Amino acid sequence: MANIPVKKSAHPFDKTRFEALLNRRFFYAPAFEIYGGVAGLYDYGPPGSSLQANIIAEWRKHFIVEDHMLEIDSTIMTPAPVFETSGHVARFADWMVKDTKTGDVLRADHLVKGVLEARLAGDREVRGLVAQLQKEDEKKKKKKVAKTTAVQLPDDAVDEYEAILAQLDNYSGPELGDLCRKHDIRNPDTDNQVSEPQQFNLMFTSSIGPTGQHPGYLRPETAQGHFLNFSRLLEFNNGRVPFASAQIGRSFRNEISPRAGLLRVREFTMAEIEHYVDPEDKRHERFDEVRDVVLDLLDRDVQTSGSTKTRKISVGEAVTSGVIANQTLGYFVARIYQFLVKIGIDPSRLRFRQHMSNEMAHYATDCWDAEIQNSYGWTECVGCADRAAYDLTVHSNKTGHPLVVRQALKEPIVTERLVAEFNKKVLGKTFGKDAGVIQNVFAELDESRLLEIQIELANGGSTIVTTPDGRDLTLTREAITIERKTFKQSIREFTPNVIEPSFGLGRILYVLLEHNFWAREQDIERGVLSLPPLVAPTKVLIVPLSAKEEFDPLIQEVSSKLRKAGIFSRVDDSNTSIGKRYARNDELGTPFGVTLDFASVQNRTMTLRERDTTGQLIGDIDQVISVLIDLVNGTTDWADACKLLPAYDGIQAVD
Amino acid sequence: MANIPVKKSAHPFDKTRFEALLNRRFFYAPAFEIYGGVAGLYDYGPPGSSLQANIIAEWRKHFIVEDHMLEIDSTIMTPAPVFETSGHVARFADWMVKDTKTGDVLRADHLVKGVLEARLAGDREVRGLVAQLQKEDEKKKKKKVAKTTAVQLPDDAVDEYEAILAQLDNYSGPELGDLCRKHDIRNPDTDNQVSEPQQFNLMFTSSIGPTGQHPGYLRPETAQGHFLNFSRLLEFNNGRVPFASAQIGRSFRNEISPRAGLLRVREFTMAEIEHYVDPEDKRHERFDEVRDVVLDLLDRDVQTSGSTKTRKISVGEAVTSGVIANQTLGYFVARIYQFLVKIGIDPSRLRFRQHMSNEMAHYATDCWDAEIQNSYGWTECVGCADRAAYDLTVHSNKTGHPLVVRQALKEPIVTERLVAEFNKKVLGKTFGKDAGVIQNVFAELDESRLLEIQIELANGGSTIVTTPDGRDLTLTREAITIERKTFKQSIREFTPNVIEPSFGLGRILYVLLEHNFWAREQDIERGVLSLPPLVAPTKVLIVPLSAKEEFDPLIQEVSSKLRKAGIFSRVDDSNTSIGKRYARNDELGTPFGVTLDFASVQNRTMTLRERDTTGQLIGDIDQVISVLIDLVNGTTDWADACKLLPAYDGIQAVD
Repeated sequence: MANIPVKKSAHPFDKTRFEALLNRRFFYAPAFEIYGGVAGLYDYGPPGSSLQANIIAEWRKHFIVEDHMLEIDSTIMTPAPVFETSGHVARFADWMVKDTKTGDVLRADHLVKGVLEARLAGDREVRGLVAQLQKEDEKKKKKKVAKTTAVQLPDDAVDEYEAILAQLDNYSGPELGDLCRKHDIRNPDTDNQVSEPQQFNLMFTSSIGPTGQHPGYLRPETAQGHFLNFSRLLEFNNGRVPFASAQIGRSFRNEISPRAGLLRVREFTMAEIEHYVDPEDKRHERFDEVRDVVLDLLDRDVQTSGSTKTRKISVGEAVTSGVIANQTLGYFVARIYQFLVKIGIDPSRLRFRQHMSNEMAHYATDCWDAEIQNSYGWTECVGCADRAAYDLTVHSNKTGHPLVVRQALKEPIVTERLVAEFNKKVLGKTFGKDAGVIQNVFAELDESRLLEIQIELANGGSTIVTTPDGRDLTLTREAITIERKTFKQSIREFTPNVIEPSFGLGRILYVLLEHNFWAREQDIERGVLSLPPLVAPTKVLIVPLSAKEEFDPLIQEVSSKLRKAGIFSRVDDSNTSIGKRYARNDELGTPFGVTLDFASVQNRTMTLRERDTTGQLIGDIDQVISVLIDLVNGTTDWADACKLLPAYDGIQAVD
Repeated sequence: MANIPVKKSAHPFDKTRFEALLNRRFFYAPAFEIYGGVAGLYDYGPPGSSLQANIIAEWRKHFIVEDHMLEIDSTIMTPAPVFETSGHVARFADWMVKDTKTGDVLRADHLVKGVLEARLAGDREVRGLVAQLQKEDEKKKKKKVAKTTAVQLPDDAVDEYEAILAQLDNYSGPELGDLCRKHDIRNPDTDNQVSEPQQFNLMFTSSIGPTGQHPGYLRPETAQGHFLNFSRLLEFNNGRVPFASAQIGRSFRNEISPRAGLLRVREFTMAEIEHYVDPEDKRHERFDEVRDVVLDLLDRDVQTSGSTKTRKISVGEAVTSGVIANQTLGYFVARIYQFLVKIGIDPSRLRFRQHMSNEMAHYATDCWDAEIQNSYGWTECVGCADRAAYDLTVHSNKTGHPLVVRQALKEPIVTERLVAEFNKKVLGKTFGKDAGVIQNVFAELDESRLLEIQIELANGGSTIVTTPDGRDLTLTREAITIERKTFKQSIREFTPNVIEPSFGLGRILYVLLEHNFWAREQDIERGVLSLPPLVAPTKVLIVPLSAKEEFDPLIQEVSSKLRKAGIFSRVDDSNTSIGKRYARNDELGTPFGVTLDFASVQNRTMTLRERDTTGQLIGDIDQVISVLIDLVNGTTDWADACKLLPAYDGIQAVD
C-alpha cells in the first residue's frame, strides 16, 4: 500500500554524481574539513541527521516497542578491566602490514582483496577484448591488447584468486602474510613489498581522572554495557527470561586506514539488541509470524567450498533444516530483513551470510551478517550472532557477581543418591584436623565407590580411605554411615545465552542512499533520491509562488495543520522558479510538495506533487492536506490519491 | 489544560528514600557497578532511558521544529588543532588542590564551598540551640551546646563567608589559594592542609590512527562541530542569517573528583543550539511572543554586591532596560524557561543567573544560566551565552577558510574619497623596485595628508614622500595624481555573532525527578513520581486481574489501539495484587493505569486510574481508550475526564 512506484532511471549508477549530490546537499561531509579532515570521521548535515533520526525512530518502533525490549543508555568511556575480561584487549584487533620502504600502514586483508580483485578485473578486460577481436586479424589484435596495462592470468590463477576472495575473512594473520609472499602482493601506491602482518588493537585508549592512574577505552560496541547491567535488567523484568535489552549509541574503532566513506569509519552510531534466552530452549514465541519470510542465504559450507552463490529459502525451512541454528536466531534474521526492506533497502541486493569458523568473533557460536550490495561490493550492515553464555560467564567469573537466572521449577526434580553421614564428634576425637580432609575425600567419591564402602562397613564394620597426601586412614561405622537419601531441587539456576542483532546505522544509511539514487532521463545532471516517506528527512515541501507576504497566512496554516498531524514540512520561498525548487528537493528525497499561488489565496486550492512520477494533483487546501497525511503515513498510495483528486494541468504554477 | 493537579506530600523531601527509589527501579545506576564503579559515570536503565528519550523528543519539537533549526550530528573525537584554536587546550581547565599528605585531589572551588557552607551550617545550629535554650539555666545550656561539634562563628565571619559564597565562581586559582590559607581551609576527609591550586585540563585525550601521531580529544561540548560546518550550513540556508543549527549528543569532561550524582559526571548528553545573527541587528522576529514571560533574574551586579536575591521581571522589560543584552538572548532565555516548565520543572525553583566577569567562558560576552534548585543547591542546567564572533573568527584565522556572511545590500553604499593614481610606466622607470614601496606608503596615508599632496602637486608640480627606511623620494605629477573618486559597495561581508543555548540533559533529568518525587501520607515507604504525561517513561499501565490466558485478547486489543494512537503502554501481569502493581508503577511515574478483569471479558468495561489522585473511573473499553488518548496528549485533564466517565467504586477489582 505505502509503496510509491519508483521510476528508476535506465542510466547505470553514477557514483561521481551520487557523491557530488550528497556533498552538495550536505547529507554528510568529512569532519574537520576546514582543518584538512581526518580519515574515517564524518559529520552529518541537516538531511543526513534527519534521515538518521527517522531510521532510529523506525528502529525503535520495529524492535523495541514491538517486542517490549528494555532500552538502556550506558557510557562510552569504559575502564580497562571490563575489556580485559571481555577479551577485547587481547583479541579485538586487525592485521596490518607496513610498506617496507615508506612505512605506510595498510590493513592486510584489504590489501589482499584490493590487489587480487584488480588483477581479476584486468584479466576480464583482456579476455573480453580478445573475444571481441576474435574476427579481426592477428596483428591488429595483438596491438590493441598490448595497449591495455591489464594482464591476462592463467586459468588456474583465476580460480585460485576467486577461491581466496570467497573465504578471505577466514584467514589468520600469518596466512595473509603467506598469501602476500606467494602471490607477490605489494602496496599498490608504491609497488613496494610489505612487512609480515602484525596485530593492531582497534580500541581508542584514554585515561580517567586527574591522576592518570585509570586507563580507559572508548567502547567498540555497546554490548558490554548491557551485560554488566544484566542483574538489574532481569530484576526489572520480574526475574523472567526471555527478554531483550536494546541500546542506540555511539561506538569507536580506531580503523587502520579507513577509505570507504561511511562504510568504514572510526566513530559510528550503532543499535544493538541483547536477547537473553534459556540455553535449553531457544524457541521464539513469535516465530510463526516470520516463518514464511524468504531470504537469500549464503551459508558457511558454500563459502568454504569457494563459492558465493546464495539460495532462496524460508526462515522456517532454514531453522528446520538446521542451516540457521535456532528459532530465536531465525526470528531476528527475519525481523532484520523486514526492517531493512521497510526503510527502503532493495531486497534483491540483500543477503544473509553465515560466518566461517575462523572469522567468527571470539565469543560467538553462530553468526549471520545482513550484507547489502553497493558500489563497494557486499557490505556487512547488520550482524546477528549467538554469543552463547560467553559474556555473562566471563564477567561473572571475574567479578564474583552472579549473572544468572533463578527459575522456580514447576515440578521439583527429585533425585536419590548415596551420601556419607559423619558423626562429627567421633570423627573429631579420632582424627583431629584430618576430619576435614576425610570429609573432602568423601565429597569427591562417586556412587559406585560409596556403594562399596557401604558394603564394607556393613560387613567388616570399617573402611580405609586414602588422603591426598597418601596416608591410609581407617574409619569405623561409629564415625561414618553411608545412606541413600532423597533430594528435591525446586530452583533451576542457569546463565542465559545471548542472541545479538547489531546494526551499523551509518552503513545502512549509506547503502539506503545508494539504492534510492537515480536521475531523470531529461535531467541527468540532477539526481533524485526516492526515499520512502517513512524515512525521508522532510516529508512535505511547501512552495509559495514567491516570498511575498500575502502567502504567509496560508504557509502558516498548511505547516501548522501538518505539524499537528505529526508531519514535518519545510518552506522554500527562495528566489528561483518553482521547478528548480522542486528539483532541489528531489535531491533531498522530499516525497511530496504543495504549491501556494494566487489561486490558493483566492479559491483556497493547492496543488500536490509527487517526487518520483512528478505527477501533480489539485484540490481544496484541506482536502489536499488530508490526502497528504494519508500518503505520508502510508495509509494510501499515489495511485489512490490520483483517484481522489483531479490531475493538475500545470498552467497555473508556471512562473 | 494538560496539568494534572499534583498532590505533593506534606513530608519534607527525603533524599534517602528518593535515591533508593531511583536505584531500585533502575532509573540509573553507577556504570560498571559490578566492577566497583567509576566516579562520574552512570548508566540509564529502562525508565531513565525512556525519560531521557521523551525529554529529547520534546526538545526537538520545542526548539528545532518550532524554529526551523538545522539539526546536525558531528563527531565526538576531535583532532587537537581544533581545540588549540578554540582556546580549550589552554583554558578549559579547573583548579585543583592536593592533600599535602595523602596526595588526594580535590577541586579547589568545591573545597572552599563545602568547608565554608559546613561552618555556616554549624554556626546556625549553635545559634539556634542557644536561642532555644535561652530560658534554661546557664549550666545546662553550656553542657548541651558543648555536646555538638559545631562552632559558633563571629558575626563578621558569617558575613564574610556569605559574601565569598555569593561570588565563588568569580575567583581565580591563586585567589582560591589565598582563601584556603586565610580561612585555614583543609581537606575535610583528613584535616590536612592542601597545596597551591594548579590547573587541570578537563578534556579526555586520545590518539587517532595506528601510528599514534595524531593526538585527539573527546569534545567537552558539541559547539565546535557546529562552527566548523558553518559555511555548509549557511549555504544550506540559502546564504541567509539569522538561522540556527542544533545538535544533541554525547560530550565528555574529565572532572577532578565528581561526587554529586548525575549533576557532575564525566560523560553526558547535551543539546546545543548555535544561533547565528547579524552583529548589528540582534532583534528576534518572534520576540513579541515571549515579551510577557516573567522570570526570576539574578544579575551580575547583585552577585558582586554579595547577594543572591532574585527579582521578578518580564523578558520584555529586561531587554528594554539592558539587563539582558539583546532580544535574541532574551528570546532564548524565555524559550528555555517555557521548555523547562513544560516538562515538569517547578517554576518557583528556577532562576536565571548572569555570569560575573571573571566567571564567563573565554569566548562569551554575556551569559545567563538557568539554575534549578535541588537538594544539592542551585545547579546550572542550561547556559545561554552570547559568544559574539569569537569562534568563527579564530577558526577562520587559523584555517584561512572564510566563515562569513555575504549579504547583498538593498541600497549600495556610495562613498567618495581621495585616491592616488599612479602612472606605472613613469613610476617604474624613475624608481625601479621602489615603485612598490611608494605605492604602499600612499595606501597608508589618510584623507587630510592626501589633500595636502594634491595641493602641493597642483602648486609645485611635485611632492616628497618618506619611505619606511627613512629615504625621501620626490614624485612629480607625471608619476602621480590625486583624485576624488566614487566607490559603490553592494555586498556587505560580516562574521555573524553566535547566541548559544546549551542544555545539560542529565542534570535536567535529575532535578526533574527531584521536583516530582513525593510520598503518600498512608504509604511513606513508597514514593510517587508525578512526571507529566509528556515525559513519563510509560504513559499507560495495563493491569490484567491475573496472568490467565483469557485476558490476552483484551490486552492485545487495548495495547494495539493505544499504539496506533502513538501511546506507549506496558503490561504488568506479574503475580501480585493490583494495588501493589499500581504502587510499583507510581514509582515509575506512569500517569495512568487500566484494569482488565472478568467484567471486561463479559461486559467490555475497563477501569481507569489516575496516579496522583488515585481516583478511578469506569467505562466501555473504547470510551476509556478515547479519554485516555486525550489525557496523554494533554487535550483534556483529569477533572474533565471525571465528568465524562462515572467514578468506580472499587469493589470489582479487589483481588
